[in-house]
Amino acid sequence: MHSSKFFLSTLKEAPADAEIASQQLMLRAGLIKRVAAGVYTWMPLGLRVLKKVEAIVREEMDRAGALELLMPAVQPAELWQESGRWEKYGPELLRFKDRHQRDFVIGPTHEEVITDVVRREIRSYRQLPVHFYQIQSKFRDEIRPRFGVMRGREFIMKDGYSFHAGFHDLEREYGKMHETYSHIFTRLGLAFRAVAADTGSIGGAGSHEFHVIAETGEDDIAYCPDSDYAANVELAEALAPATPRPAPAASLEKVATPGKNACADAADFLGIPLARLVKTIAIMPEDGALTLLLLRADHTLNEIKAGKIAGLAGFRFASEAEIEARLGALPGSIGPVGVDRQKVRVIADRSVSALSDFACGANTTGFHLTGVNFGRDCPEPELADLRNVVPGDPSPDGKGRLALCRGIEVGHIFQLRTTYAQALGCCYLDESGQNQVMEMGCYGIGISRIVGAAIEQGHDEKGIVFPAAIAPFQVAIVPLGYHRNEKVKAEAEHLYDELRAVGVDVLLDDRDLRPGSMFADMDLIGIPHRIVVGERGLRDGTLEYKGRRDAEALTFPATEARQFLAARLRQD
Amino acid sequence: MHSSKFFLSTLKEAPADAEIASQQLMLRAGLIKRVAAGVYTWMPLGLRVLKKVEAIVREEMDRAGALELLMPAVQPAELWQESGRWEKYGPELLRFKDRHQRDFVIGPTHEEVITDVVRREIRSYRQLPVHFYQIQSKFRDEIRPRFGVMRGREFIMKDGYSFHAGFHDLEREYGKMHETYSHIFTRLGLAFRAVAADTGSIGGAGSHEFHVIAETGEDDIAYCPDSDYAANVELAEALAPATPRPAPAASLEKVATPGKNACADAADFLGIPLARLVKTIAIMPEDGALTLLLLRADHTLNEIKAGKIAGLAGFRFASEAEIEARLGALPGSIGPVGVDRQKVRVIADRSVSALSDFACGANTTGFHLTGVNFGRDCPEPELADLRNVVPGDPSPDGKGRLALCRGIEVGHIFQLRTTYAQALGCCYLDESGQNQVMEMGCYGIGISRIVGAAIEQGHDEKGIVFPAAIAPFQVAIVPLGYHRNEKVKAEAEHLYDELRAVGVDVLLDDRDLRPGSMFADMDLIGIPHRIVVGERGLRDGTLEYKGRRDAEALTFPATEARQFLAARLRQD
Repeated sequence: MHSSKFFLSTLKEAPADAEIASQQLMLRAGLIKRVAAGVYTWMPLGLRVLKKVEAIVREEMDRAGALELLMPAVQPAELWQESGRWEKYGPELLRFKDRHQRDFVIGPTHEEVITDVVRREIRSYRQLPVHFYQIQSKFRDEIRPRFGVMRGREFIMKDGYSFHAGFHDLEREYGKMHETYSHIFTRLGLAFRAVAADTGSIGGAGSHEFHVIAETGEDDIAYCPDSDYAANVELAEALAPATPRPAPAASLEKVATPGKNACADAADFLGIPLARLVKTIAIMPEDGALTLLLLRADHTLNEIKAGKIAGLAGFRFASEAEIEARLGALPGSIGPVGVDRQKVRVIADRSVSALSDFACGANTTGFHLTGVNFGRDCPEPELADLRNVVPGDPSPDGKGRLALCRGIEVGHIFQLRTTYAQALGCCYLDESGQNQVMEMGCYGIGISRIVGAAIEQGHDEKGIVFPAAIAPFQVAIVPLGYHRNEKVKAEAEHLYDELRAVGVDVLLDDRDLRPGSMFADMDLIGIPHRIVVGERGLRDGTLEYKGRRDAEALTFPATEARQFLAARLRQD
Repeated sequence: MHSSKFFLSTLKEAPADAEIASQQLMLRAGLIKRVAAGVYTWMPLGLRVLKKVEAIVREEMDRAGALELLMPAVQPAELWQESGRWEKYGPELLRFKDRHQRDFVIGPTHEEVITDVVRREIRSYRQLPVHFYQIQSKFRDEIRPRFGVMRGREFIMKDGYSFHAGFHDLEREYGKMHETYSHIFTRLGLAFRAVAADTGSIGGAGSHEFHVIAETGEDDIAYCPDSDYAANVELAEALAPATPRPAPAASLEKVATPGKNACADAADFLGIPLARLVKTIAIMPEDGALTLLLLRADHTLNEIKAGKIAGLAGFRFASEAEIEARLGALPGSIGPVGVDRQKVRVIADRSVSALSDFACGANTTGFHLTGVNFGRDCPEPELADLRNVVPGDPSPDGKGRLALCRGIEVGHIFQLRTTYAQALGCCYLDESGQNQVMEMGCYGIGISRIVGAAIEQGHDEKGIVFPAAIAPFQVAIVPLGYHRNEKVKAEAEHLYDELRAVGVDVLLDDRDLRPGSMFADMDLIGIPHRIVVGERGLRDGTLEYKGRRDAEALTFPATEARQFLAARLRQD
């Protein structure tokens, strides 16, 4: 493609309302144009990227034996009423009436339509399993569309649905999709993690999210660099310390710590590390009995985990008045010693249980206790996993230590089991002629979101740094003086033809612009490889090469251009 | 692809409400499944056809230098208000409010969105021309969706929009698109005609429809087999006869023709051909003066042409009472002789003016005149093109004689000129720095409609006969006894691998069915080439071949399978 025949439209500045890097860069590079809130036109340059993502997804899905079809965007309300989602789904579901006043939705997802197809088409276990997928524009009426294509209203998804005779076959397909998704994101050239999206336990997990790793991601992920383990921080299990609790060595002392209500201040004042100070959080479960949660002062409470403990569902934090009334001290000075266990429940994080000779509030305002030991100074607490994991925690799979990162969810695989099949009566006859409800899986990839996520992961001060697999062009040829120097033009065109002949996706920038503008544009739109054809170089028989991430350009003999680039492209 | 891993789902009978052949066959062959009125799921088999159509359209549009982009389906009402179509468009335009009560439409077309993009992006004549296109699902809320994908509500279009500095450049692009569309429909393997959609005059036509020729088409087309001329029958000009009117030879006679009011009866009774009998049609223009239209009895009135004659816009047919009151005779007996030209206007079709010694009604009920001659027996009438063309009429381009056929509109190219650009203020600075409104063209192809049209054009009693370029598979291998005979299986798999290795799109029917069922399915879904691998043939070292349109199968040496098929595929 020649730039003059293409449509490059870059901006010096991103629009003021663009909030994150990918949104700013996609608008600046002219990949997309805004049409309405959360609604964009994909310009030719952006569509090239989108199509490369699509092609890789399609190839891998086909290879995995899934069959592509195309369901309508417009879906009749009847199907959503049958599944029960007509009532359950919020205002994100765009509903409308056609000219005959019949109710329809613009599908944000297609479980109902595909289950309707399958219940009509499949009668026997012999026709199972099947896995259908589509790549399609969807609409979700987000209350606050933002971040460009990352949280748009109209977006492109790959959504797949598999149907099975029995749970074991669903598990097999789920495993295959886990693998297929890993291939896809690897081929896309993205750093990613498959994150267990429910309990984080290994095996039998019914849901995984695939996250592109990026500092600006919305989700915190705990992962093990030495294994495949990854989970949302909220769900990652903090294991009990492996070493047993040391025997008590210090005696219990009550120390005045006036005004030292914050943990850091108290530890500092007491001259102990945060890890030896226990903080006490008072909560009120729905049925009203005050409960104390004990955590090391260097850890943070994980409210999701706490809410899952028997009796604590729907808890709230106790007020200062409630705490003072029941414990006789203000919040910064409370602790487990001396409380009436008949009236107050005490639950300690596993890591607290491993401590001896620790410090905590004294249940007297302005005082702490030091040298505290469970069993000796107060009864043993209940134990639970109450905290968020921290870097260096042992990985729950026993294969190393955890690290933390942020991620952008770009894929999700999910064992739906029989929810939709049951509601819509999607059944098959098994080998013994019995009617059975099908097991279902669903598998989504945010095609348009991937483009944004790739840019969040790959950008610098000059612009986008696309992975080679999805860059709009693989190579940019920038001639210096195309319109003034016949030799430069001839060499640029020769190289262009030569590269295209071997299937390289190349952009020849034949615009009559200053070199700096052309370099800036090629950097901004994220072309991985750049060749400069200049008069001076040609005199020596050389061309100049610079990779998008390289600090410096280098020169090479013009006669070896094809081989030189082939070697670079192989490294992508 | 192996049938066992694909999803074939054919039906013996089409649903009772399927009205036309393509709809019946698409449902029977399992290309589509109905989701709601005019809304379908494209099953894997149908999607293969759709994608082949898409790929050819995309390739040719790219080759013509058009740039693909992707606009959103959802469009803000503001743009439609700016263009004025928010009010003008009927209930086919699906309007909805989002959760913030803002008005949107689901785009049935994208003139507004693309004009908005271009007015923001393009400032100078140096950036023109540009031609953007997209391939996308659209929605039109038809009052009565019917004929399957031929008149559905959700459908897939290629829509392109070009922008120009000046009308001449629009004309250039329009000509290029005329050519490009011709390439596309030729490559699709369809018999088609480009039909002038306005006056049918040659040169400067601002609109052409591309029709796939099919008996079941909704449009009547007149075309010249010896040239490119084609027009809707309503618009095709009937030229004046080239030979001058012969001199009068017979004398005027008044003949009793009791009860012979119908033309055929009167001509028969008078012993003359229909072509020498003139029928007289009485109409009332809006301003009230009775007008007589004279046509040869073997011709039919073209009301569109009549309505374009000065003074006749909005005419209606005169009632029997009006005719009797003004002419003194009943409708079957009226004619031009003896009428008061001060009160009655008389307009003859050009072919009537070429007659001498003709017959017509006598303006006396139950009587005709014979040997009538203009100039001698009554004043010369006004002349006009009043009739529909008939086969054998001279082609308006002077290059042969017209034939008639029926067509299905699958493409449309249109010179929009400045309508939208003016309304939306889409301007550029010309070479002299003056602000000018852009000229626009638009170019549509009904991607999903083409699949239906191809089937209307290509089907027989066994099912679909797809053109090779868009058949879901090019070749079907049908093994007889795949599950019982190792040799048959091995040979079938070997042939499958061999064909796939050279890029042939092949389906191996490895289902455990009776041969008759497999043959019937392969015929129904329209695979152009079928190879049968049977035990008996293998004993002689032969395979059996049958083209989809062939009456008889033939055998050929198994060792020459690849070459044999290559030769057949080359003929496609």
